[in-house]
Amino acid sequence: MSIITIERKVLEKNDEIASRNRALFKQHGILALNLVSSPGAGKTSIIERTLERLGKDLKVAVVEGDVQTDYDAQRVARYHVPVVQIVTNGGCHLEAKLVQEALSQMDLGGLDVLIIENVGNLVCPANYDLGEAMKVVVLSTTEGDDKPLKYPNMFRNASVLLVNKIDLVPYLDCNPATLKSNALQINPHLQIFETSCTTNAGIADWCGWLKEKGARTS
Amino acid sequence: MSIITIERKVLEKNDEIASRNRALFKQHGILALNLVSSPGAGKTSIIERTLERLGKDLKVAVVEGDVQTDYDAQRVARYHVPVVQIVTNGGCHLEAKLVQEALSQMDLGGLDVLIIENVGNLVCPANYDLGEAMKVVVLSTTEGDDKPLKYPNMFRNASVLLVNKIDLVPYLDCNPATLKSNALQINPHLQIFETSCTTNAGIADWCGWLKEKGARTS
Repeated sequence: MSIITIERKVLEKNDEIASRNRALFKQHGILALNLVSSPGAGKTSIIERTLERLGKDLKVAVVEGDVQTDYDAQRVARYHVPVVQIVTNGGCHLEAKLVQEALSQMDLGGLDVLIIENVGNLVCPANYDLGEAMKVVVLSTTEGDDKPLKYPNMFRNASVLLVNKIDLVPYLDCNPATLKSNALQINPHLQIFETSCTTNAGIADWCGWLKEKGARTS
Repeated sequence: MSIITIERKVLEKNDEIASRNRALFKQHGILALNLVSSPGAGKTSIIERTLERLGKDLKVAVVEGDVQTDYDAQRVARYHVPVVQIVTNGGCHLEAKLVQEALSQMDLGGLDVLIIENVGNLVCPANYDLGEAMKVVVLSTTEGDDKPLKYPNMFRNASVLLVNKIDLVPYLDCNPATLKSNALQINPHLQIFETSCTTNAGIADWCGWLKEKGARTS
């Protein structure tokens, strides 16, 4: 039995459970987002700004995925939304099975949006379906405008790109126009927002778009 | 045959080839560094600043690892040093076998230092020995001061930490003292340098240390 066969079996099993998660989301009218990025691109801060803005309009819950610690769940819990922490203990990505277990600990009734924050990793989470409606990839301007070309799978598989930390551009060798052009070269269907969790730039646009999508699902 | 057994076999096979790489480095008196970080933390820029400063004192060669593109090898080649690009085609880390193949394309005679730039990923490369003398982890201040606690394996397995983009601290919610304290909590033996590839802060200290280590090996 080759390693490639094993890997295919792991992915097939994952896809099967992802389909069950997806059916559960459909049954409850929940829009599920798989939030992915490198470490420190700002996923948790994006969740915090989103909860501040949409917390009264939509019922949002969060699943936090981390290699170690429950710091992110603690940050999100301050917004008084349901949150479940998954610690992967060294694992480099979330799998559908882990999300399934997290869902079993949540009351899904009445939820509009579920945000699943993946492990900080721009490579491995691209290949694992969790049952989400879409992947939202956060890329910080500090990472450089070449990253969509260097890590194409994640941008190919995502529906939305948040170009985050846009306030830092004056201090960086990063051209947001080049970054966006590189991303659209990989995936012409990407919906792109420029955001900053420090100045709140672009957060209203992103949340307006999400509110419309979340309300449509319900 | 379980998946865990397969993974152990993959790691055992990797360790065996890594030992052969290590013997080759020893035979030629080469100090080999495995340079690891998240995407966009500044690995390639650190290599560029290091070549500018040490290029005349030490004979340095570079192996570039990327998921896609040979952009980093093109950047490094401008410094007129031997460079081999490995493209992993979606693979999330370098393995000893890939480095072994790269070494077969290089003239190792007379080399003092080999810098192996790994794929941008703060999780998976922590587990794969390439035969290096040490792992050097680059963490950008933009990633946040909590990252050593959230991705501990990489910091546990590294010998040196470069706290990069130190010039951006005034614009960030990142405390370098907290970052270093968190890193030393995971690994009290870490040698730490604060660096900036924009202002060149700390580059002289880092290169001075590397020069001494590289000369000792030769």
